[in-house]
Order: sequence, then structure tokens, then C-alpha cells
Amino acid sequence: MLMKASSQSLTEQLAARFSERIRNRLLAPGARLPSVRQCAEQHGVSPSTVVAAYDQLLAQGLVEARKNRGFFVREATVPAAEEAPQQVPASPQEWNAAHWIVARRGPAPVNATSLIRGMFHRISNKPQPGMGVFPSDWLETSFMPAAVRKVTGTRVLHDFSLQYGEPLGDAGLRRALANKLTGLDVPASPEQIITTVGATHALDIVSRTLLRAGDPVMVEEPGWAVEFARLNALGMHLLPVPRRADGPDLEVMAKYCEVHKPKLYVSVSVFHNPTSYCLSPGSAHRLLQLANQHDFHIVEDDTYSHIAPPHATRLSSLDGLRRTIYVGGFAKILAPNWRIGFLAAPPALLEQLLDTKLLATLTTPALLEKALALCIEQGQLRRHCERIRTRLDLARARSVKLALAAGCTFAAEPAGLFGWVDTGVDTDALSQRMLDEGYLLAPGALFHAERKPSTLMRINFTTAQDAAFWKKYGEIVKKL
Amino acid sequence: MLMKASSQSLTEQLAARFSERIRNRLLAPGARLPSVRQCAEQHGVSPSTVVAAYDQLLAQGLVEARKNRGFFVREATVPAAEEAPQQVPASPQEWNAAHWIVARRGPAPVNATSLIRGMFHRISNKPQPGMGVFPSDWLETSFMPAAVRKVTGTRVLHDFSLQYGEPLGDAGLRRALANKLTGLDVPASPEQIITTVGATHALDIVSRTLLRAGDPVMVEEPGWAVEFARLNALGMHLLPVPRRADGPDLEVMAKYCEVHKPKLYVSVSVFHNPTSYCLSPGSAHRLLQLANQHDFHIVEDDTYSHIAPPHATRLSSLDGLRRTIYVGGFAKILAPNWRIGFLAAPPALLEQLLDTKLLATLTTPALLEKALALCIEQGQLRRHCERIRTRLDLARARSVKLALAAGCTFAAEPAGLFGWVDTGVDTDALSQRMLDEGYLLAPGALFHAERKPSTLMRINFTTAQDAAFWKKYGEIVKKL
Repeated sequence: MLMKASSQSLTEQLAARFSERIRNRLLAPGARLPSVRQCAEQHGVSPSTVVAAYDQLLAQGLVEARKNRGFFVREATVPAAEEAPQQVPASPQEWNAAHWIVARRGPAPVNATSLIRGMFHRISNKPQPGMGVFPSDWLETSFMPAAVRKVTGTRVLHDFSLQYGEPLGDAGLRRALANKLTGLDVPASPEQIITTVGATHALDIVSRTLLRAGDPVMVEEPGWAVEFARLNALGMHLLPVPRRADGPDLEVMAKYCEVHKPKLYVSVSVFHNPTSYCLSPGSAHRLLQLANQHDFHIVEDDTYSHIAPPHATRLSSLDGLRRTIYVGGFAKILAPNWRIGFLAAPPALLEQLLDTKLLATLTTPALLEKALALCIEQGQLRRHCERIRTRLDLARARSVKLALAAGCTFAAEPAGLFGWVDTGVDTDALSQRMLDEGYLLAPGALFHAERKPSTLMRINFTTAQDAAFWKKYGEIVKKL
Repeated sequence: MLMKASSQSLTEQLAARFSERIRNRLLAPGARLPSVRQCAEQHGVSPSTVVAAYDQLLAQGLVEARKNRGFFVREATVPAAEEAPQQVPASPQEWNAAHWIVARRGPAPVNATSLIRGMFHRISNKPQPGMGVFPSDWLETSFMPAAVRKVTGTRVLHDFSLQYGEPLGDAGLRRALANKLTGLDVPASPEQIITTVGATHALDIVSRTLLRAGDPVMVEEPGWAVEFARLNALGMHLLPVPRRADGPDLEVMAKYCEVHKPKLYVSVSVFHNPTSYCLSPGSAHRLLQLANQHDFHIVEDDTYSHIAPPHATRLSSLDGLRRTIYVGGFAKILAPNWRIGFLAAPPALLEQLLDTKLLATLTTPALLEKALALCIEQGQLRRHCERIRTRLDLARARSVKLALAAGCTFAAEPAGLFGWVDTGVDTDALSQRMLDEGYLLAPGALFHAERKPSTLMRINFTTAQDAAFWKKYGEIVKKL
């Protein structure tokens, strides 16, 4: 809210709000600012106040005026501080992860980096339905600190801290992971597993090993925005494959294979993000046939395995890790900051994947890997996951009820952590208005490789149980 | 030694030895095996035993025969296990980190990956003069485990484990690092510092942010083999600049700038690896002038700062972090397995560098960063470094004496951790023979971007104090 009694003028307050949003990429390069009339109405100020504020942004070099079209966020890199322009690096824009998802043709109000940053910064103290993770209080356990203390005795700490450690990762953890994978019918020996700095790092290692800049790679659409961003930053050519309820659109995929000969397909089979779709066995079988026929690899991101239904279909299981690389992690369920992920790969790829890990980070810290191994071996993590699933079922039921009452429809059957809802209005515009109220949303455009405007958005069932949010949502949707 | 009484025949033992060496890349693709006569002599077996062993390697697909030239290690990827050939990825060889340093024109007996792997695997129980780090018993302290225990209380552990943490890295550690840098006359605020998974990761982030595949990048020659490997794996075009006692050859650099317009120069100013040269103030000044004139960035890897002389010249200090990015780490001095490194960058580059970190690994684990901050703040790390320096001076004096007595000459004034010695014989051949005796050397060819054969090698002063090593060395040099 702008405040008349503030020491700053209304113009200054308004300019400061836009300026902060541009710097935090909640308004992305290329995005159009609201018209003067709209903005005046929204903030209850006079049009001349808005004009003066926009002029300040113009003077700061944050926006540019386009004749008869209004004000737009400038495409240039926003320097973090005052620096001479020649010190901004000459690397081309599409190489800059910050701007990756900006559609070349139109406004792009919230970009992927803002969503990542939303994982770290509290926009407000309100529950954030755009969040991609469980709230931290859901993850509190007594077994986690106990496991850490067990591996921090002086002798054992010296033993593993003072050497680089095993290139593949802690052997105890890899044994525990191999057992866990066997339980999912994914046949992996400990020697086929490489630990990483979170699942993100595992996906990074796979793409750096199997692809080189310019290579075509198939991704799911809608899909995980940060994965698009990473592949874009590596210079890859993204081929978006529509994701249906039972799996990817295989006809589109077959066409891509004929025209582009992609080397890799990146997929979330179980509780796909953002739809929570699960792959069907038939679709999995046909997809693997296609992969064999056209000789591409598949990386299967199983981040949501901890809350997955017991008999979920996985490509790695059907394929037996022949052309599939399995990726998992523990940030979602145990300790986001520990940054422990892993990959399980076909033996023929292992050496190359390991080289990429070594060249990027050498080894990974064993202390947390050893603590995690304890949590898995003693069954505590499994019981924790069961409790989380039960609690999530209740949260989902409550969130679905509130969302339906607020006039949303579900574009996908509610399941898992995320709901994929149709709001009936442009969710980019909705996101900007809800930001004014202290809520960060995850608009549908974020999950599209080309940032198509969309009436869809992703909600987190654990943080969408708040009646106050849905009341505000209802008020704003009515005005759009 | 091959053993007649073994359950394996001499042929099998000999074939197994070569096979293991090829799989571990101690014999790199393209390397020529010794002639049948040489090999028979070396191992005290009959020529027919050698012929039979080479035939086994041929049958296993590990080597190939070239008419009238002998046997060579095959260029193809060596599968880690038996796999159908179509499952070997189609990515081109030069993209594969494993084979990066293979000169296209000649044999390349020990490659960079083998050196990295030597960091992890003990070749034997003997002290390894090719090692790149301090022996782990040099790093034992009581303050390190105490610092870890201080940050593992239940409440504090929950506080930082259950959220992703600060994108830049733990704020306490960044404050401690900023103070440390101020002491080196490098003006960095905590907001200019990004923590990473070791210095390797920091260098990786810098090159991924400032360069794209195919870009020219200047490196020092001789230089750190793993850095060459990483840049090669990213598809960069390496421009080797000869490194002299006082700094890089600025004439060569100026020519590169005119012809190739490189965007980045990667440098170790203080105790350069492998020569232990330190940059002179005059050379630093002229280098920065060149950088300004031709508008390239410099990444200054200060890995050896902990053992550096008090008034060492650093580019980051002269330049005030305007076009220099400073990289440091703690693997060499405190705990290799903690994988804590950092970079300090010009404000204008910070956002882009941070995006690269987030897209590659999201955040880094705070637990070890908090423990490290304690070690720095309480002055314990500084005192530990002083003790190490004193001990290193003694070790160096002893190693130099032994090396000179064994007939080596020093190509660079002995200083720091590494000696750069001239053996008078081809160190690639020497390395293969010393491997038979259980010693992993670091031959000079490894430190050249193009793997030129060399009579130089790098020795580690802490592990070259062993008279038994120098005795064996003397015997073998005489035979070469």
C-alpha cells in the first residue's frame, strides 16, 4: 500500500516499488508497465503521480517508452550497483540465465529467476501458494539432528574431511540409495550411482555430459521452469513436447525425432511439475520404444518420489537403466539446504558423467551424505514420508475445496503437492496484482518454454489452505 | 612385479596390468605401448609372453595394432562395463572430459583425469610426489571438529537445514571472507562474495557465465591441468600464454588480443601451479593495462593464498575488483572434503554469476560454511596456516636437497608447495616406469594445453622427502 503519511512522496513510493520489482525480476525485461490510467486506479493516486513515477524509472534507465504503446522494462542487464556500462559483460543476452525465459514477442511479467528467488526470500509473512516446496515446519524431525551428531565425532570427522573423498560419493549412502531404488524396481548397483549437490546438479551433469551447445533437447511443456532456464543457459535448443495426463504427446515427439534428432528427453514421470500427472504404463512403454528407435537418452527426474503412490510407473524401471538416467534428491522431503541429490546411470555412461562431476566440483561433502545414509537405513526417512503424505492429503482436500469455492477449475486431477488450476483470467496480470498484496504466484506462462500467456497457475496444496488468500484472490479476479 | 608363483599366468598378469592402467587412464587413449622387446626387458619375461599379453588386450578392444608402428591404446570411450556399443553416447570425443588433453598427434601416457583420480585413489602406500595437496595428516587440528559441533545443535541445525538458505552463501562466512580479503588489500564487501562447492566450482561458474562454447580464453602454460580440462569440456578455445617467473608473456597476450579478442584470462598469480612463480608488481600493472585496453576479464585463482608470502602481488588488489574476479578455497589447507570455495566479483557481474550458481546447484550447504566461519573468526585457521608454512619450509629444504642429489635441476626457484624440476629425460616415459614401482608422478606434459613431451615434472615438497623414492628415481632415469 502506498502511504500518504510516509516521508517519501507518493511518486517516490510508486517509483521505488516498480524499481524494486524490476531489480528482483518480478517484472522481467520486456514486460509492459500498466497504463497510466490503470496504475492510477489500482493505487488510488492521480494520473500525474503515475506519470512522475514512470519518468523517474525512465531517468534511472530501468524502463523505456515506446511510441503509442506505453512503458516497458528495458531489455538490458540491470546492474546490481552503479557501474560503468563497459563493465557489463559482452556475453549475448540469451546466454544470461537471468533473461532466459523472456518471450521475444511480448510482455513477461514474472520470470523463472524470480520464482527461484522466491524460494529464498520471503515476499511477506503470508503463506505463498506459488512456492515449489513444503513449508519448513513440515520438515522438522528429531532424527535429522541426531543423525548429524552421530557423524561429527572428532575421529570420523577427520577421517573423511581431510581427504577429497570418493569421486562417486559416500559409499554408505550409495548402498542405501541402491536399496531404495531396488524397492522402486529400478535395478541400480551402488557403483552406478553418483551423488550430487542436489537434483539440480545431477540434471546439470547429465546435460553437460550428453549435450553440447546448440544440441536439440526435448522437454515437457508445461514443465519445470528452472530446467528450461538451465538448458537455455547452456545454449541448448529446446523442443517442447506437450505433456498429457498419461504422458508426453508421442506424435509430436516422433516428429521432433525425425526432424531434429534430439539426443535427450528430460522428464518427470511421477507427479509431474506443475500438473501432478503420473505417466501411464502404456505410454511409458511406447516412449521407450521411440527412444530405442531414434536412439535418444532419457533423464527421469524423480524429485517427488517421496510422496509418490506405491506402484507409480517409472521409465527407469521399465527400461532397467539402459538408456534412462534416474535423478533423485532430498531437498523436498528432508533438508533443502543439505543439497543432496544423485543420479543412477547406465554403466556405459558412468565414467563420462563422473568426469563432468569432477571437473565441475570435484567431490561432494561426505558429512551430510553420511547423515542422510543413517536417516534412510534406520527407516526414519520412510516413516517421515508416510506422515507427510497423510498430512498432504488433508491439506490438498482443504485447498481444493477453497479453490473451487473461489471459482477455479482444475485443469488436472488434484494429486501430489501441486494443483494446476484454471483461473479464467490472465495469470501474468493476476500475479502482478497479487504481488501488491504480498503473494507470489506461479503463473502458467512460467511453465512454458516460450512463455505463452495463460489462464492457468500452479498452486502448492500445503500453502493454499489460507481462506484470506482466496478471499483476496476472488476480489482481484473480479476486477481483471 | 609379475610373479611366477601366482595363480595367473605371466601373460595374464601382464595383460591385467595394462588393462587396469588403460581403464584408469594412466595410459591414455592414443598412447603407444612399449615395444615387445622393451616390455620383455622391463618385466623380465620372454617376448612371446608380451606378444600373448598384447593379443589379449587386442581381443578386449583396449588397444589397436598399427602397421609397423606397434600397439596403441584405442581412442574410443572405454566402457566401464560390458555394454552394447549403441549404448555408448553419440557425443563427440572432444566433448568428453575424459579425453580432453589427448594430443591429436602423439602418445599421451598420463592424462589429467588420471591426475584427478590420483587425488582419490592410493596407487600404493608410498608418499606420492605427484600429489597436488598436503598429506591429510598435515591438516589434522582440534579446532575443526570443535567448530562443526558448535553448529550442529538441534535448533540451529533445523533453522538452516530446512530452507534453501541464502543464494550468495552463508552471511557469516561471507563477512569473515570479506575481512580476510581486506587483509590482502582486495576490497570486497560481503555482498560481492558468492560461496561455491570448492574453488573448482567457482572457476566453473565464472567460465559458464562469461563465456559460451567456442569462445577464446587465455590460460597460463604451464598451468593447472584440471582447468584446461574443464574449459575444454565446456567447448572453449584455449589460448596458452607462456608463464614466466615474473608473470605471463605479455607480447603473446597482446597478439592473442588482436587476433582472437579473448574475453577471459585465467591466472594463478601467487605460487602458480606447477612452477610456484609469483607475479611481480610491474607485470601485474602492465597486464591490467592490457586488460583495460582489450576489454577482457581476469579470473585470479588464489588457491595457495594460505601459504603465500605476506606481501604477494595480486591482480584483484591492484585492480580493486573492477575487471578481476577473485577465487579462493579451503580444500588445500583445512578440509578438502568440505568443498568450500568462493568468488569475489565486480558488482556488475554479480547477478549473472549468482544466476549461474543457482541454475547449477541452487544453494550450497550452510553447515560447513558456518563451521568454517568460526575457524576463520577465531583466528584458529590463521595460526594453523602459520604452522603449516613453517613445516613446509623444512620439507622443502629436505626435498630440494634430495632432488639435487638425484641429479634434478630446478626450472623455477623452489618456493611454495610445488617444485618444477628438470629430470633430463622424457617424464611421460619416466611416469610409466615409476608407476610400476607404485609412484604416481605429475609429468610436465600434463601442464601443457597441447601435451608437449617434456623433461620437466612437478613435485610436491611435502611428499618428496622420501629417500627411497629418489633412489628408485635415480635407477630408472639411468635406464631411460
